Amino acid sequence: MDSFVAIIVGSRSDLDLVQKAADMLDKLGVPNELRVISAHRAPDLLDSYVSGAIERGVKVFICAAGLAAHLPGVVASKTTLPVIGIPMPGQLAGGLDALLAIVQMPKGVPVATVGVGQAENAALLAAQMLGLSDEAVAQAVAAQRAEARRQIEQDPTNQPG
Amino acid sequence: MDSFVAIIVGSRSDLDLVQKAADMLDKLGVPNELRVISAHRAPDLLDSYVSGAIERGVKVFICAAGLAAHLPGVVASKTTLPVIGIPMPGQLAGGLDALLAIVQMPKGVPVATVGVGQAENAALLAAQMLGLSDEAVAQAVAAQRAEARRQIEQDPTNQPG
Amino acid sequence: MDSFVAIIVGSRSDLDLVQKAADMLDKLGVPNELRVISAHRAPDLLDSYVSGAIERGVKVFICAAGLAAHLPGVVASKTTLPVIGIPMPGQLAGGLDALLAIVQMPKGVPVATVGVGQAENAALLAAQMLGLSDEAVAQAVAAQRAEARRQIEQDPTNQPG
Amino acid sequence: MDSFVAIIVGSRSDLDLVQKAADMLDKLGVPNELRVISAHRAPDLLDSYVSGAIERGVKVFICAAGLAAHLPGVVASKTTLPVIGIPMPGQLAGGLDALLAIVQMPKGVPVATVGVGQAENAALLAAQMLGLSDEAVAQAVAAQRAEARRQIEQDPTNQPG
Amino acid sequence: MDSFVAIIVGSRSDLDLVQKAADMLDKLGVPNELRVISAHRAPDLLDSYVSGAIERGVKVFICAAGLAAHLPGVVASKTTLPVIGIPMPGQLAGGLDALLAIVQMPKGVPVATVGVGQAENAALLAAQMLGLSDEAVAQAVAAQRAEARRQIEQDPTNQPG
Amino acid sequence: MDSFVAIIVGSRSDLDLVQKAADMLDKLGVPNELRVISAHRAPDLLDSYVSGAIERGVKVFICAAGLAAHLPGVVASKTTLPVIGIPMPGQLAGGLDALLAIVQMPKGVPVATVGVGQAENAALLAAQMLGLSDEAVAQAVAAQRAEARRQIEQDPTNQPG
Amino acid sequence: MDSFVAIIVGSRSDLDLVQKAADMLDKLGVPNELRVISAHRAPDLLDSYVSGAIERGVKVFICAAGLAAHLPGVVASKTTLPVIGIPMPGQLAGGLDALLAIVQMPKGVPVATVGVGQAENAALLAAQMLGLSDEAVAQAVAAQRAEARRQIEQDPTNQPG
Amino acid sequence: MDSFVAIIVGSRSDLDLVQKAADMLDKLGVPNELRVISAHRAPDLLDSYVSGAIERGVKVFICAAGLAAHLPGVVASKTTLPVIGIPMPGQLAGGLDALLAIVQMPKGVPVATVGVGQAENAALLAAQMLGLSDEAVAQAVAAQRAEARRQIEQDPTNQPG
Repeated sequence: MDSFVAIIVGSRSDLDLVQKAADMLDKLGVPNELRVISAHRAPDLLDSYVSGAIERGVKVFICAAGLAAHLPGVVASKTTLPVIGIPMPGQLAGGLDALLAIVQMPKGVPVATVGVGQAENAALLAAQMLGLSDEAVAQAVAAQRAEARRQIEQDPTNQPG
Repeated sequence: MDSFVAIIVGSRSDLDLVQKAADMLDKLGVPNELRVISAHRAPDLLDSYVSGAIERGVKVFICAAGLAAHLPGVVASKTTLPVIGIPMPGQLAGGLDALLAIVQMPKGVPVATVGVGQAENAALLAAQMLGLSDEAVAQAVAAQRAEARRQIEQDPTNQPG
Repeated sequence: MDSFVAIIVGSRSDLDLVQKAADMLDKLGVPNELRVISAHRAPDLLDSYVSGAIERGVKVFICAAGLAAHLPGVVASKTTLPVIGIPMPGQLAGGLDALLAIVQMPKGVPVATVGVGQAENAALLAAQMLGLSDEAVAQAVAAQRAEARRQIEQDPTNQPG
Repeated sequence: MDSFVAIIVGSRSDLDLVQKAADMLDKLGVPNELRVISAHRAPDLLDSYVSGAIERGVKVFICAAGLAAHLPGVVASKTTLPVIGIPMPGQLAGGLDALLAIVQMPKGVPVATVGVGQAENAALLAAQMLGLSDEAVAQAVAAQRAEARRQIEQDPTNQPG
Repeated sequence: MDSFVAIIVGSRSDLDLVQKAADMLDKLGVPNELRVISAHRAPDLLDSYVSGAIERGVKVFICAAGLAAHLPGVVASKTTLPVIGIPMPGQLAGGLDALLAIVQMPKGVPVATVGVGQAENAALLAAQMLGLSDEAVAQAVAAQRAEARRQIEQDPTNQPG
Repeated sequence: MDSFVAIIVGSRSDLDLVQKAADMLDKLGVPNELRVISAHRAPDLLDSYVSGAIERGVKVFICAAGLAAHLPGVVASKTTLPVIGIPMPGQLAGGLDALLAIVQMPKGVPVATVGVGQAENAALLAAQMLGLSDEAVAQAVAAQRAEARRQIEQDPTNQPG
Repeated sequence: MDSFVAIIVGSRSDLDLVQKAADMLDKLGVPNELRVISAHRAPDLLDSYVSGAIERGVKVFICAAGLAAHLPGVVASKTTLPVIGIPMPGQLAGGLDALLAIVQMPKGVPVATVGVGQAENAALLAAQMLGLSDEAVAQAVAAQRAEARRQIEQDPTNQPG
Repeated sequence: MDSFVAIIVGSRSDLDLVQKAADMLDKLGVPNELRVISAHRAPDLLDSYVSGAIERGVKVFICAAGLAAHLPGVVASKTTLPVIGIPMPGQLAGGLDALLAIVQMPKGVPVATVGVGQAENAALLAAQMLGLSDEAVAQAVAAQRAEARRQIEQDPTNQPG
């Protein structure tokens, strides 16, 4: 079966923001699927989804959650595949709770954390990982970076005075 | 089988602090057991311990963890018994990471959080819960409070001038 | 007299948010009453309400307050029944002041703290405590959790791809 | 009876730091008394001490507490005399919890808060208040300020180069 | 000359909030005047205003400022009359910068700090200080507190069930 | 070639705020140019712009960035001309991330940091530096300060009562 | 040439902590090299090291830095290979500055951030990435996880009571 | 008269740390003088020192202070010469109070802030400013940077593998 990236978001209210990760993966030509599964309210579904995804050939997990954001860590505890965590913005200092609850994982079980709300960066990071052994993906990531650079270089504001 | 309180601590390095919860429960006459199980490094053992404890008649869980402290929330996701969380002190702002990772649980899955490092308070809170239907425990908690009050009242420094 | 949960909120401006705790308790079949009493502006009324509630058979207090949120701690100092604290959202880092002022209780007088603004979780936690000796309430809590789980499981977005 | 300043500290462990407030008041010639009374563990003793102090002619309260530092606010809720709060240093971000729990009092019940651990400043502030109607105290405060200024002015390091 | 309270606010943009302090002092029968003087942009005007106010019989200063809020401390460095500081709300964590810049005064020069944006509390605190030697003001403060208490006690929501 | 100030902003979305720095420099008679160059997305363009600016006689750099705001530090690592950093406001505690990422430079490579979003202050600071050897600029800065002072002094609200 | 992981630490003072990443990679059988290169004090050396490493077949960068920790972001701006960032502990809130300066990368240039001081986790995360296409490394990571799990499971404290 | 840099530190307890700024200026060949003057305890001495220094030809002020660190801002309000602020480390979150009290200056009165405790960087920044019109100083700063770079480049740990 083809490899893919599994994106899980803990709450339907964060779906729009996390959809950007799926869109970016689509743009980079990386197969992916997106699910809304709360680690706290549906732990058994999460378990079965994670083990099923592993059987189906998932390569990287992207997990987005807010508040006491345990979803990335719970998934990381069930696999040694790379897990990327996206802290969702929130009320407490703008999402500091989610950031700390995701990034401060203890010794032995890392979560690769990106910035608060940075869904595209999670997708790019997943693609960078896959690109280590998939030249087409690596080139797509490089092209995406080059495109961002060109936009800045061609900005008429930025021509020498 | 007799009811009891299950105390779980995520890391052996926090065992001394959490032992105070067990000691307080002993003092209050509440049966309890203490285990060191990391939610992230041993999720299956945690699962089987929690489900086994439920079968054996556990009434309340006390879970202590530091850093991205998921242990209380993971246990709370597996039971609708009360779960008490103790954030462990740490380097980042003195344990703010563990506090937020424990208390900021999303809608539907509460964790009863006590102050950073307050193991005795977790024990007292568990006993308060049990005391709702166990008069002996309720009286032990009240006696403990009265004892603390008497220490302050009898302090020679505090006599009127 | 029948047992009940007493909900106290420190300021009328927080009443709508805290009403959700009463609504959830109603849904779970737990008798409750809701009062607006400031610990700082009406300490005597608070005293008499708390002692009256105890006489009338209250089992658990839920106290919601913002800013230097002393209400839960003041009530906890007057009883050894369980006291649940809800920090109200606010301007300073989104409510970090209320959270710390509620959760960081000193040794001997715990407050079971839930997340900032999480009124429903306070109600669920109170019901979990009562459910230790009231099977009907325990089942209502379990049913509530199962309902939340079913919503996630039946979400069409979450079917295997 | 003579007027005096009542100093209350919530925990014996903070007594040494708070003693500096008493020492400064002694130096300024302001009668004072110091008690160790926890707002949470001995609320009735606190009540009776506060009402007794009022009857005996207290003019200003100084209240020092750490963690979820309710002591100053509780005293402030029982009197309209000025109440000065000293947040005690602590583990969580160095005492940010105590600072916020003291200073963020709601509308209607102020606590005059000084810096974390600044016991001498609490004494000086109390003396400044008393100095509004007691010329001797006002002069003692002014003399204290002048002495601090002279120490800096006479510092040999500070002579013009 | 009659005694009065001088209210200084550092920026015109905070005038509306600080006006509430003047309104509360008016209500309590305390003469007051309100000026907009930046400690940083108009230090000489501030100097001359402060020394002039002292000559004219000011009793207490209330100083409100945001950001790196030096105004209260600068005034406190020029007088040993009581200085009350009001941190203005702001963007950085809701005003944490102003709070810390006001409350964390070093040894020897206290500022009596109230909560972020709590202009009425600053007025009440000033009146409490004046009330130490002015019975009419003391009674006005007590009446204000009683009024707030009555509003809560007479709230129909708060009648026993 | 004439000396000038180079203003660089990391993201087009912050351009309006940073334009105020250019406007203030114009007002002070200081030649300047403004570019939008991301340190992370266009590092080579940044390199060539910085080295080109140095060749063309730039005297001071002003760099504005948000989030993990590396732009000022990256420029500072490539020159020993003064570099001024402006942290952009943001979601996380109002911009605390950008502030810390700019100001906390390690030993050897300073960035002169101004307040969050304070673009005009960055311009004034640059002009103060240039004014050390350019009397006209020094006088323009002094005039700007005097104008701000006069606005406060002539405010009708601030006349003696 | 063989693939390897390049570890860069910004300051010699952090070398001991970061050596743990190299040790873990050694244990997992992943070739690696460790350099001490400051992004701010030696930007050209960093440039040439990074481009040289890419030519020599580096697969993943691990970058550790404290304070305004730009090193990971600077490396990430020069490659689309995965970059892992380790925030170093520090004085300001225990390392919050380094954490925010690393994790809050803007759109387009992710850094996979691990917890403050978690050097082993950075190594494990790098190995997880390499394990996507190197079965031996994937098995070494899984074995490492299993070993940690066994230690907990065989802990005599954790046997059922 | 010769130009010089005036270094002021608010408290004798911070003198050792701030001495490093004087030592660095000495190394760079920049005349300087160091004084211990508290903005709060000796405002008149500060006034007269600042105006005297201006008459004697000071070019740049370096001001170091902790807690509610007003010293840099007070000096900045009295001159339009550049003022550099050094926040001193402290108990509250490691010095966050001093950092915010220095950097968050309002519109019109900038303080060029360096990292917490970074006395050498303050000296380097002052020298960078002076170097705009003093080639010898500019070269000394460049030489200092080059020396730091060489130390890293010649580090035997950093030779290619």
